[in-house]
Amino acid sequence: MVKPSRSIEFLGEDAQAYVPHLAVDCVVFGFHAGELKVLLTHWANRDRWSVPGGFVRRDESLDDAATRVLRLRTQLDQLYLEQFHTFGALSRRDEQIEHMFDARPAESAAATWVRERFISVGYFALVDFSEVTPTADGVLTDECRWWDLKSRPPLLLDHDEMVERALGVLRVQLRHRPIGLNLFPDSFTLPELQRLYETVLGRTLDRRNFQKKMLDLGILDRIGERRGNGVRRAPYLYRFNLPKYEEALQEGISLGK
Amino acid sequence: MVKPSRSIEFLGEDAQAYVPHLAVDCVVFGFHAGELKVLLTHWANRDRWSVPGGFVRRDESLDDAATRVLRLRTQLDQLYLEQFHTFGALSRRDEQIEHMFDARPAESAAATWVRERFISVGYFALVDFSEVTPTADGVLTDECRWWDLKSRPPLLLDHDEMVERALGVLRVQLRHRPIGLNLFPDSFTLPELQRLYETVLGRTLDRRNFQKKMLDLGILDRIGERRGNGVRRAPYLYRFNLPKYEEALQEGISLGK
Repeated sequence: MVKPSRSIEFLGEDAQAYVPHLAVDCVVFGFHAGELKVLLTHWANRDRWSVPGGFVRRDESLDDAATRVLRLRTQLDQLYLEQFHTFGALSRRDEQIEHMFDARPAESAAATWVRERFISVGYFALVDFSEVTPTADGVLTDECRWWDLKSRPPLLLDHDEMVERALGVLRVQLRHRPIGLNLFPDSFTLPELQRLYETVLGRTLDRRNFQKKMLDLGILDRIGERRGNGVRRAPYLYRFNLPKYEEALQEGISLGK
Repeated sequence: MVKPSRSIEFLGEDAQAYVPHLAVDCVVFGFHAGELKVLLTHWANRDRWSVPGGFVRRDESLDDAATRVLRLRTQLDQLYLEQFHTFGALSRRDEQIEHMFDARPAESAAATWVRERFISVGYFALVDFSEVTPTADGVLTDECRWWDLKSRPPLLLDHDEMVERALGVLRVQLRHRPIGLNLFPDSFTLPELQRLYETVLGRTLDRRNFQKKMLDLGILDRIGERRGNGVRRAPYLYRFNLPKYEEALQEGISLGK
C-alpha cells in the first residue's frame, strides 16, 4: 500500500487550505532510447490516464505548487519547470472526479470544492529519464509511469491538448535556444542529440547541416572518448559546456527553420 | 459622468457571478509615430496606473473574459489576444484596492471577495493605434490612455513585470513569425516596418539586411505609390499579402538573431 501523499490532502477536510477553482498540471518530457517520453498517472477508479497534477495551497505560489506536485511524482529534487499555458475553457469540469465524492456527505468541504469548474495552469519540464522514480499518490492514482509520446493512451479532460501545446512550445524554443541539458545523463553523441531534435520536431534533419550548426554554437565540449569499446568510427562523445550553454539560453541562438 | 461598465458589476452584490481568486490582465501594444505604445488605465482614488484588467465570470472562458475586458477599454470589435503568462505569486494581494471596500459592510460579497489573493492570467494584444478609443470604466478608473512604452509611469502591483514579460514574448516571436498586421493601418513603408522591429527589439538594425530579409519572406506586396507627394526617392508603400502572411504565421519564418 502506497502512503498517500500530501498532494491529496484536500480529500480530507483540508479543502480550505487550497485555492478554489485552481489546479496545476505538469507535462513531463524525458528522452530514452531515441524516443520522447511523457510521464502519466493512472486514475484507479476509472481506468484513465492524465498528466500529473494537483491543487494550489493558499500559502504557496503557482510555481511552488507545480514544483511540489512534480517532486511527489518524480522524486526529483532539482526541477526546471516552465509555465506554458493556462487552460480556462468552460468545459473544464470533471464529472467523473465529482462522482468519486458522491459517497461523502454533500456538505463536506472536499465534496463541494471538487464540484467546481477548474482553471489549470500548465507547466512543462524536461527531465533526465534515468533519474526519475515515477510515483503514484496511491489513492486517486494507482500508477505513474513513462509512455512513448507517440503511443500514449487518450488522456482525461483536455490533457491531450496540454501535451500537444507543451510540445508546440518546445518546438518553437528549439529554434532559438539550446535544449538537451536536462534530457541527457552526462555525455552523448551528436547522432543522439540529433535524434532528440528530430523527435521533438517530428521530422528528420540533414546530418551534416545539423552537426555543423550544433558545433558552431560553441556549447558542446568534445570529450576524448568514443561510444563503444574499440569500435572504429564510433561517434565522439560530447558534453554541454555549462557556462556557454547558459549564455546561449540568455542570449538566444538561431537554428533557422 | 461616464456610465459604469459591466466589468465592474462585481462592485455590487454580483460577486457570486465571478470566479474567486482569478483575474485577467491585458497588455495592449500599439505603434504610432515610430514609438511602441501601451494602453494604461488610471485608478481614480489612488493616482496609480495599471494595464486594463477584470475578473472572470463563472459562465465565460478565460479567453472570453480577456476579450470582454479589452473590448470595453478599446471599443474594438475585432481583437487578437494572446495569452502569455499567468501570475501567481503569494504577494498578489492589493491592499489599496481592499481599502476601497472598507466603507462597505464587512459581510458584503464584494468586500469579502476582493480581499483575496488573486491569480492573474496575462494576455497581450497588438492593435491598430488609430482604431482604439481608450475608455475608462468611470468608477474604479477615471482615465484610460496610451503611453509611450519607454516613458510610462510605474505600474500597480506586478504590472511592470507583466509589460516586460509580454514584450519579451513579442521579441521572441519576432524571430519566427511575422508581426505588424494589426499594428499598421493599411499601408506602410519599409523604414516604418523597420522602426517597428527596432522599437520592439530595443536596438537598431542594418537597413539593407532588414529590407532584404523582409522582402525575401514574400509577405509584402508593393503598391504603386510612394509616401509623400511628388517627393523624389520617397520610400515605396507596402501592404501585407494576407494569404502569405497567414501562411508565414502557420509555418514560421526565420529572421535569425
